[in-house]
Amino acid sequence: MQSIINAWSRNIKNSRRPQQPKRPFPRLKRRDAPGTPPGSLIADPDAQSSSIHYFLFDADQVVEQRNCPATQLPPPPLTDQKVLWIDVVGLADSDLIQAIGNSFGLHHLALEDVVNVHQRPKVEEYEDHVYIVLRMASPGTTADTEQVSIFLSKGLVITFQERLGDCFEPVRQRIRQGKGRIRSKPADYLVYALIDATIDGYFPVLDVGGEALAALEDEIVINPKPTHIEHVHNLKRNLLALRRAIWPTRDLLSVILRDDMPLVSDGTRIYLRDVHDHTVQLIDIVETYREIASGLVDAYLSSQSTRLNEVMKLLTIMSTVFLPLTFVTGLYGMNFDTSSPWNMPELGWRFGYVFALLIMAGAGVGLIYLFWRRGWLGR
Amino acid sequence: MQSIINAWSRNIKNSRRPQQPKRPFPRLKRRDAPGTPPGSLIADPDAQSSSIHYFLFDADQVVEQRNCPATQLPPPPLTDQKVLWIDVVGLADSDLIQAIGNSFGLHHLALEDVVNVHQRPKVEEYEDHVYIVLRMASPGTTADTEQVSIFLSKGLVITFQERLGDCFEPVRQRIRQGKGRIRSKPADYLVYALIDATIDGYFPVLDVGGEALAALEDEIVINPKPTHIEHVHNLKRNLLALRRAIWPTRDLLSVILRDDMPLVSDGTRIYLRDVHDHTVQLIDIVETYREIASGLVDAYLSSQSTRLNEVMKLLTIMSTVFLPLTFVTGLYGMNFDTSSPWNMPELGWRFGYVFALLIMAGAGVGLIYLFWRRGWLGR
Amino acid sequence: MQSIINAWSRNIKNSRRPQQPKRPFPRLKRRDAPGTPPGSLIADPDAQSSSIHYFLFDADQVVEQRNCPATQLPPPPLTDQKVLWIDVVGLADSDLIQAIGNSFGLHHLALEDVVNVHQRPKVEEYEDHVYIVLRMASPGTTADTEQVSIFLSKGLVITFQERLGDCFEPVRQRIRQGKGRIRSKPADYLVYALIDATIDGYFPVLDVGGEALAALEDEIVINPKPTHIEHVHNLKRNLLALRRAIWPTRDLLSVILRDDMPLVSDGTRIYLRDVHDHTVQLIDIVETYREIASGLVDAYLSSQSTRLNEVMKLLTIMSTVFLPLTFVTGLYGMNFDTSSPWNMPELGWRFGYVFALLIMAGAGVGLIYLFWRRGWLGR
Amino acid sequence: MQSIINAWSRNIKNSRRPQQPKRPFPRLKRRDAPGTPPGSLIADPDAQSSSIHYFLFDADQVVEQRNCPATQLPPPPLTDQKVLWIDVVGLADSDLIQAIGNSFGLHHLALEDVVNVHQRPKVEEYEDHVYIVLRMASPGTTADTEQVSIFLSKGLVITFQERLGDCFEPVRQRIRQGKGRIRSKPADYLVYALIDATIDGYFPVLDVGGEALAALEDEIVINPKPTHIEHVHNLKRNLLALRRAIWPTRDLLSVILRDDMPLVSDGTRIYLRDVHDHTVQLIDIVETYREIASGLVDAYLSSQSTRLNEVMKLLTIMSTVFLPLTFVTGLYGMNFDTSSPWNMPELGWRFGYVFALLIMAGAGVGLIYLFWRRGWLGR
Amino acid sequence: MQSIINAWSRNIKNSRRPQQPKRPFPRLKRRDAPGTPPGSLIADPDAQSSSIHYFLFDADQVVEQRNCPATQLPPPPLTDQKVLWIDVVGLADSDLIQAIGNSFGLHHLALEDVVNVHQRPKVEEYEDHVYIVLRMASPGTTADTEQVSIFLSKGLVITFQERLGDCFEPVRQRIRQGKGRIRSKPADYLVYALIDATIDGYFPVLDVGGEALAALEDEIVINPKPTHIEHVHNLKRNLLALRRAIWPTRDLLSVILRDDMPLVSDGTRIYLRDVHDHTVQLIDIVETYREIASGLVDAYLSSQSTRLNEVMKLLTIMSTVFLPLTFVTGLYGMNFDTSSPWNMPELGWRFGYVFALLIMAGAGVGLIYLFWRRGWLGR
Repeated sequence: MQSIINAWSRNIKNSRRPQQPKRPFPRLKRRDAPGTPPGSLIADPDAQSSSIHYFLFDADQVVEQRNCPATQLPPPPLTDQKVLWIDVVGLADSDLIQAIGNSFGLHHLALEDVVNVHQRPKVEEYEDHVYIVLRMASPGTTADTEQVSIFLSKGLVITFQERLGDCFEPVRQRIRQGKGRIRSKPADYLVYALIDATIDGYFPVLDVGGEALAALEDEIVINPKPTHIEHVHNLKRNLLALRRAIWPTRDLLSVILRDDMPLVSDGTRIYLRDVHDHTVQLIDIVETYREIASGLVDAYLSSQSTRLNEVMKLLTIMSTVFLPLTFVTGLYGMNFDTSSPWNMPELGWRFGYVFALLIMAGAGVGLIYLFWRRGWLGR
Repeated sequence: MQSIINAWSRNIKNSRRPQQPKRPFPRLKRRDAPGTPPGSLIADPDAQSSSIHYFLFDADQVVEQRNCPATQLPPPPLTDQKVLWIDVVGLADSDLIQAIGNSFGLHHLALEDVVNVHQRPKVEEYEDHVYIVLRMASPGTTADTEQVSIFLSKGLVITFQERLGDCFEPVRQRIRQGKGRIRSKPADYLVYALIDATIDGYFPVLDVGGEALAALEDEIVINPKPTHIEHVHNLKRNLLALRRAIWPTRDLLSVILRDDMPLVSDGTRIYLRDVHDHTVQLIDIVETYREIASGLVDAYLSSQSTRLNEVMKLLTIMSTVFLPLTFVTGLYGMNFDTSSPWNMPELGWRFGYVFALLIMAGAGVGLIYLFWRRGWLGR
Repeated sequence: MQSIINAWSRNIKNSRRPQQPKRPFPRLKRRDAPGTPPGSLIADPDAQSSSIHYFLFDADQVVEQRNCPATQLPPPPLTDQKVLWIDVVGLADSDLIQAIGNSFGLHHLALEDVVNVHQRPKVEEYEDHVYIVLRMASPGTTADTEQVSIFLSKGLVITFQERLGDCFEPVRQRIRQGKGRIRSKPADYLVYALIDATIDGYFPVLDVGGEALAALEDEIVINPKPTHIEHVHNLKRNLLALRRAIWPTRDLLSVILRDDMPLVSDGTRIYLRDVHDHTVQLIDIVETYREIASGLVDAYLSSQSTRLNEVMKLLTIMSTVFLPLTFVTGLYGMNFDTSSPWNMPELGWRFGYVFALLIMAGAGVGLIYLFWRRGWLGR
Repeated sequence: MQSIINAWSRNIKNSRRPQQPKRPFPRLKRRDAPGTPPGSLIADPDAQSSSIHYFLFDADQVVEQRNCPATQLPPPPLTDQKVLWIDVVGLADSDLIQAIGNSFGLHHLALEDVVNVHQRPKVEEYEDHVYIVLRMASPGTTADTEQVSIFLSKGLVITFQERLGDCFEPVRQRIRQGKGRIRSKPADYLVYALIDATIDGYFPVLDVGGEALAALEDEIVINPKPTHIEHVHNLKRNLLALRRAIWPTRDLLSVILRDDMPLVSDGTRIYLRDVHDHTVQLIDIVETYREIASGLVDAYLSSQSTRLNEVMKLLTIMSTVFLPLTFVTGLYGMNFDTSSPWNMPELGWRFGYVFALLIMAGAGVGLIYLFWRRGWLGR
Repeated sequence: MQSIINAWSRNIKNSRRPQQPKRPFPRLKRRDAPGTPPGSLIADPDAQSSSIHYFLFDADQVVEQRNCPATQLPPPPLTDQKVLWIDVVGLADSDLIQAIGNSFGLHHLALEDVVNVHQRPKVEEYEDHVYIVLRMASPGTTADTEQVSIFLSKGLVITFQERLGDCFEPVRQRIRQGKGRIRSKPADYLVYALIDATIDGYFPVLDVGGEALAALEDEIVINPKPTHIEHVHNLKRNLLALRRAIWPTRDLLSVILRDDMPLVSDGTRIYLRDVHDHTVQLIDIVETYREIASGLVDAYLSSQSTRLNEVMKLLTIMSTVFLPLTFVTGLYGMNFDTSSPWNMPELGWRFGYVFALLIMAGAGVGLIYLFWRRGWLGR
């Protein structure tokens, strides 16, 4: 269980090293300096080096080329029968990205958003192409997301990813093996397949998140510790990040469904409606998890307050029972001169000690009986 | 009372066994792997085995067949006078479902949603049929729901349910006995009757939930225990689940009422408006219950803090009364050499002991009087 | 004051008797069984027995008949000059209600809502009549409401009430005495007058609620008790019930004002706009009261925490002062053999006792001075 | 500072006298009895006696008359060149108000709202005049508001105020002295000037409220007291009252700007857009203040909990240090017969006392060192 | 880290000086007195003295003039090929502002808003010019903003700033060096560049805010102090201020994008859509930070309550262990006359002391074992 909780609240380990504060948001490095003219491509210094892969396929055949140089890319088919999918992984090489942008006529504002990787998911329509930004869950189990940029024009799909490793492998398999309708449909169906694969990639992430929540809840009920609250906060923050990734995706799908984009056919629109349903479902789950996580804070605090009550009750019982007894022992420990008959005659009695013990036993038993009546004992 | 509370917060028992964590959401097993081509039917491994029942009726006669093989289903009547209702219970047999889909021309995306049973309630219009997803409360008293898929085309209604046992029995009785208008109306009226029965099935569930809330409130007022908070959280979670089942049902009814669907007649629309009112009423009740449940957390915490205050008051009264008394006994328990007249002359007094007792009684009575003045005694 | 608070939070008395749990909602007894065919009238077994009163009036004369049998009701005037108002009190006699529905052509779905008395306020337009559901505050001072159903068709107003006693008496007086415009206006003006009287009936209820809130706030400030939190919760629940009664009333008035209903004339619409303003005002007040009630929970908790702080301060002061003193008395109560000059030579000093007293006085005064410096004394 | 806080939370003084509870809302005395026929003018018994002042001006000259009898009012100019402004202060004389209503053709429902002074700000269009209700901040520094009713028809403005003293004096000065455009513009510009003056009157009120908030925050940080929470609640309630006064004002301005009212010219609309901006700004400030006030409750509670922690730490340190020491003194205060060599041989040692003192010093220093290590000391 | 937190919560230092209360809002000095005629320019007494700089450029050449007297400003080009940008810094000289307003025909209501510097961001369209109000983050790292007013008409852009120092320097550089498209595009592109530079200026501010949040979270986890809550509140207030600056900016951009303004070309609209995306991104970040800051309050309180629990546990353990031991020592410190065989025979036993020590050791070890079983020891 512990490992699941940790997987989802990983940044907690850093929080122990105050010398290097984690940032709740990735550094917001829009361009090198505020005010740079729009349309300049300045690559993120931490970006991975770029490589190009392409598929060129129609219903009958597939050409697949890995690590293709930018200069040897085939021309766009410009037809509905053939589809060219260029997949660029790694955004470090801004010249290469600019070159692709120039060859295929991509708008310079859209290209700029490709390299500035903290965009919200959105769709933008340009004269002869559509630009879609998505966030893709990493294929592990955390709430990390990377930016995926998709350009769609007639017969052409260009995707830009930040990192190696994606959710697109099943789509590639379907292209290679000609499974389903993907090879016989135009480019917009490929875009649908890519969006669908991206959205489907969130389900295993949330599945793990749900298990982490359930495990955390069990631990809080059984033995609440302060680290649990940190875990809950990290979970909530991860859920917030997922929500910020998924919510605008739903909006962009609504825009595509509602607006009249010539590049998206009505046939594909029915499939996109299906993806739209999946995003609504994801949002539903995220919101439910957020409510549950909020409830865990309540559960923790009420569990804490219950424990405080128990501790205080024990202290009160012990003090209340022993304070009077100790008083009695103090009483007969006084050194008054017993030659006077008024001074502590009990000390001289034959059964004085027994008398004192009986008083103390009576007081003790009486008080314990009172606590028992109040239901303080035996919890 | 206890049984009612437990019925509604059943999953609490599992929470005691940390080895098998409950999941706040059912496992989200969309398809076997993300990216499978859309339209593949992969049955849930836990699904019940499928069986088919059908009714074929018009105003004059009824044919009812149980456990009909898929190959012997009658053809759709394709008229408004006759209605064929095919009811498939259990979703394990994906071939059978595919076969039915093929015979009656159901869209493959809709069929896929039939077997992926964690859909939100929704309505989708296809070329010649309407696809409706509902969630049906189990006919027990818990907040569990199962998915019901309803297809409507001319003269034909096909329903898919996850499990045996449903809310449709009264509808079947009305068909068999020809009560009301159901036999003489077209297929859309049957769909209305099924939606109405499904929605009505939530009322007894909420009735039990309301009793659980009231019983829980009584117990929290009289004797708050930490398990109560767990019960409240389970109740809240169940209410959240019901809300997620009912809220989109209202939206789908609004869509049917607003949109111009040729398969739904104006006469049936008036009845659906009535069902829409019932969902609004249900949402109202769920929201009220959620507010009340939130108030219970407040009540619990303030009850806890009141108890802590009482415990602390008792401890403070006892300590404050006995600390000075014990100090006095300690004072006269010191062993100073009484040969010096300055050293504790009280010890040699004839009424020294009485003097000391009076001092102590005075201090004790004075402090108790002070507490009484502050209103701390006798609560 | 107490009586006002109790009037508004009456159900608190039951909460002491756990054997009979109060329900946060009235039992939701829609029909005898889920799935009964729509349009069956099944009376609530707790409903009052039915009786019919009618007014038949025009600008010149009034006929008023109490306890009229259903068979002797006059026919509807079907004109704008004459108005027939049939008022049915008590919903136990479903045959009678069905008979009235049949004679005047009321829709069976509307009739069903008349007897199922937990409807939300709403307006429904049928072919030749309009059906309005309102909730009427009981003419006492509690937040109880009963359902009022109003049917309007040409020259005819039919009202159904749950219980004897209503807010309509002033309207009846105006009809009898011909005050104002009511006798010379068509039926829709009578409907306006009835809605207006119903809405006005909420003002005294809220007035009492406001006084209860103010009284409760005073008591919480002066002497918070756990019962206050219960009172606050009951108040909040009553306000929630009122909000659920008033909010949809505003919506139904908006619908009447916005939609083009031929049965409501433009002249009456101006008056209904006025009633709409009153409902907005009522919602305003209810929302304000709810915010104030929420603030009271805060006030209670902070008052509790202040008291806990004071109790703890007293305990800390007493313990901190007496613990060192008692230690000193214990010190000189030890029985070391004073024949050794190293063993407690103070005991043999001439002013040893005085010396010990001075030490103790010094410690006590010093600690009290420290507390005084910290501002703990004299609060 | 204190005076500022008190100015804004004045009703707190009453809260000490439980015999006369303050009401969170003014008494809701709509008409004498629910159900009175609409359009009856029944003056509030607490209303000020009425007096009429008027201005009659055009670009060239001004006639001003104070305390004019109702019968001597000039006729409305019915032109855009001349403006008659009738200002009625005090609403006790319902006959006079009725008379004015009759002479100038004001709608009886609007007149009724003039005397029922708890209206929300709103605008209503009648056949030949527009009726505007505003709430005017009292020219002091509190959150009290009075109702201002403004009627606008061609060449005529009639205002009704509850009390002497208003924000209109600068407008009167501009009319008298002919400053700005006011004398040369039609009646709708005067209405704009009055609304503008009313809205501007909220700025000093909020300025004082902001200072009260800041002062309160300083005091809560330095020395939190329970009265601060009461002050915060009064501030929040006052802000709520202002919000309820300003929010609908924004709506009414939106309505005037959006709707096509023939009585409001496009030239004046530009000025009203400016006033609309001011109300948006006011709402912004009120909402910010409300958020800050909510934060103060948090600050108070966390400050309280910090103090409790400190008190508890002191108690724990003192008890934990002295309990073992006192135990040791008790140990050597026991009276075992030292003739047995096993019975407390330390008592007979030459350095027994020193030994005991060293043990106690060691224990004390050790515990204090532990606390110092935990960082409990020296904060 | 500390410096970062302080930079963002600077006003906390003032809060220690109660004699000069900080105001949560800048003083709201709209005009000298409420009711002044609209359109009077009254400069803020704290405003900086005014100075004028201008650029006059087309694709080929640039004229730049610093500190130009108002009388020597060039006439507006009135063409799309040439752009005149007049930048006025400092708003103290109302005559100068009035003179500029008169020469270029700016509306007097807009001019009034230029000097009343607490406007919300907004856009207003006048007959031949558009008036835009923005708030510009100071180029430091705090949440302070100043008002920037931008007038756009054909070939002319006039900006008014409150203070020296702005985000426009990169735009000036691009004009001087002819980088990008700025020199060859009409005036609306310059306005876009200015808005873009203003919006981009918020990113470094939020970057610092995010680091402050992360640093604060680390400190609260490791060692919570009451000052942290103050820091959190100041952070929240700063975020609230930024939100109030950015949110309406998004709205004004939506208005420009949606409305059909002849002064803004379709080409520039695509760039403004890009800026709109940036504001949405900023709002996203601000909202996330606000949620995180709210979580920090929870974290602080739960950390406090954990510490209280620990303190109480230590106190309870010490008291519970030592109270019985001290009772035993008191018991054998009593002075009963041991000549009676019933009076404390243990005192005369040979191993009485050892017996007593064993009892005490047994009690102590037993209690500590109990605590260990409960998991109280070793945290």
